[in-house]
Amino acid sequence: MVLRRSASALLALACASGLLAFAAAPPSDADLLKKAQALFSPLPKIMDSRDNPVTAAKVELGKMLYYEPRLSKSNVISCNSCHNLATYGVDNLPTSIGHRWAVGTANSPTTLNSAAQVAQFWDGRAKDVEEQAKGPILNPKEMGLAHAGVAVENVASIPEYVALFTKAFPAEKDPVTYDNIARAIGDFERTLTTPGRFDKYISGDAGALNAKERAGLATFIAAGCSSCHSGALFGGAKFDKFGIFRPYQELTGTKRLDTGRFEQTHREDDRFVFKVAQLRNIERTYPYFHDGSVWKLEDAIRIMGEAQLDKKLSTGEIDAIWAFLKTLTGVVPVEARTLPMLPPGSDTTARPDVN
Amino acid sequence: MVLRRSASALLALACASGLLAFAAAPPSDADLLKKAQALFSPLPKIMDSRDNPVTAAKVELGKMLYYEPRLSKSNVISCNSCHNLATYGVDNLPTSIGHRWAVGTANSPTTLNSAAQVAQFWDGRAKDVEEQAKGPILNPKEMGLAHAGVAVENVASIPEYVALFTKAFPAEKDPVTYDNIARAIGDFERTLTTPGRFDKYISGDAGALNAKERAGLATFIAAGCSSCHSGALFGGAKFDKFGIFRPYQELTGTKRLDTGRFEQTHREDDRFVFKVAQLRNIERTYPYFHDGSVWKLEDAIRIMGEAQLDKKLSTGEIDAIWAFLKTLTGVVPVEARTLPMLPPGSDTTARPDVN
Repeated sequence: MVLRRSASALLALACASGLLAFAAAPPSDADLLKKAQALFSPLPKIMDSRDNPVTAAKVELGKMLYYEPRLSKSNVISCNSCHNLATYGVDNLPTSIGHRWAVGTANSPTTLNSAAQVAQFWDGRAKDVEEQAKGPILNPKEMGLAHAGVAVENVASIPEYVALFTKAFPAEKDPVTYDNIARAIGDFERTLTTPGRFDKYISGDAGALNAKERAGLATFIAAGCSSCHSGALFGGAKFDKFGIFRPYQELTGTKRLDTGRFEQTHREDDRFVFKVAQLRNIERTYPYFHDGSVWKLEDAIRIMGEAQLDKKLSTGEIDAIWAFLKTLTGVVPVEARTLPMLPPGSDTTARPDVN
Repeated sequence: MVLRRSASALLALACASGLLAFAAAPPSDADLLKKAQALFSPLPKIMDSRDNPVTAAKVELGKMLYYEPRLSKSNVISCNSCHNLATYGVDNLPTSIGHRWAVGTANSPTTLNSAAQVAQFWDGRAKDVEEQAKGPILNPKEMGLAHAGVAVENVASIPEYVALFTKAFPAEKDPVTYDNIARAIGDFERTLTTPGRFDKYISGDAGALNAKERAGLATFIAAGCSSCHSGALFGGAKFDKFGIFRPYQELTGTKRLDTGRFEQTHREDDRFVFKVAQLRNIERTYPYFHDGSVWKLEDAIRIMGEAQLDKKLSTGEIDAIWAFLKTLTGVVPVEARTLPMLPPGSDTTARPDVN
């Protein structure tokens, strides 16, 4: 179709639809790499924290707690139930299933690479993965423990855990605390990085992406996606309104409206404001958006163009961006995926309560 | 207490309580090993099958399917939900939680070493692990798929699975079938053996068990436990009535009575007849019995004595048997515990239905 139009008509169309940058000649491979290196960066090996430095002992313990169903009232649900490391740290449900089959209110985001984000949860209400880890355990619709003391009692009733907490927090006299449960889980999550083919590219190997993927990257930048989706995670670094140019529910077909940060702050500015999603492993973390309302990545790309950039991306552009985004798919570290052998309970360990 | 009795009074007591064999001088270490070798055997490396020979391709596929939540209607429940390899192939619940939080009717037995049993399920209604694997997927209270065709469609909609089925069943033109799903899962389960310290002992290293454990083994044999709990699995080889000398519910406190094989056969002989449980990893597969009614292994040992052998085992005898049974705890193969990276769905993959 484009070939049948005159050059000036094409330019007018490009201006009108805000696609000028993209309609211009694509950058050379070297220029594209340089541009990309200014916007994006490779994933770190671990996502360390000054407040909670990663240690082998904490990671070992944290991995056990991540897979530990006794952190739930029923003894059925663990962190891994909704953030399944066999499926890229998500459950591929619109919203997760919790205690007594409660249906959650927001899509479970991946735990992969998430520690590097500016904040946790879609509305950013937890400042880091440590704070985040404390939420679901006590949420009556998720893991359902009555209060933090129950989690501590459950863990403290298991001698092997007491020994592991003592090893992981050697300076503390009474190391089995809810804060330390969260610190251990947080430290485990700080190891969940998934470098992929893109990391080779951004580290200087231009041939790590093929021509279509590089065209997709160029489109991604030219269309303006990278104004929010940048850095090592392609997002996760700031908050923005979902639906700048059009109410998001008109595009996603969402039924139950979620007002985002407004629910926390009650500030009008925060209405429909969510954390910008990271795009690492986005191919695998469907369904999309805070409510899991959209299943296909191509639809999510199209909706983002309309809602956030006021652009109707063409099928070709969407296809190229889609091809590029697949290069952000990595591999979940095998060590993290190896189920621990969880220790046996003792006579004082609380029994499961499925009610 | 025993020391305060005269020898003849002790003998009378032993005869009266049917403990004569045990009250007699314990066998020498060499005799005990010899006796044990006549009754028990080491675990095989894999539990192969003529009908479904173990191959690397089937095991790889079967492991993926074992951890595959898309074999459930909700996409939440996999084989591993109730047979969690982080907790010795069980969920440590009296009975499991299934689709829409349905509470099961029988305790989920471990998948570890289970392929070597004479039959599957507590009532033996499946002849092997392949047949067993077909049950829970279609049980409305478990994984809840409407019929076998849905499972096949789910799998066939995922291109990576089609390739893996083709590789695993190279002679078949249309390899994605419900039978082959079961064959692959079955073959994976045929690799789930957990040799432990006892296997060293029974292979000739008498020092692999300490004195207390050997005394426990001697007690286990002398008391008559080994008349049913023998072989490589210490059980799993035949069926017997639970409650030969006393109705089991009087001892276990069970509320909902399960009549065992009677429910299948409606033969009076089969009332309260269950498969003799295997005892491999018994320390870790609590709670005990077909209804998960008993939490402590020492209680289960005591109840077994009364119900099956008409013997009131002493605290010392129970303690020794308990110490011995712990030597049957092994390690779940690390390869089996390493979560696979499950393949993404396609546009035709059915979406989760949590209702």
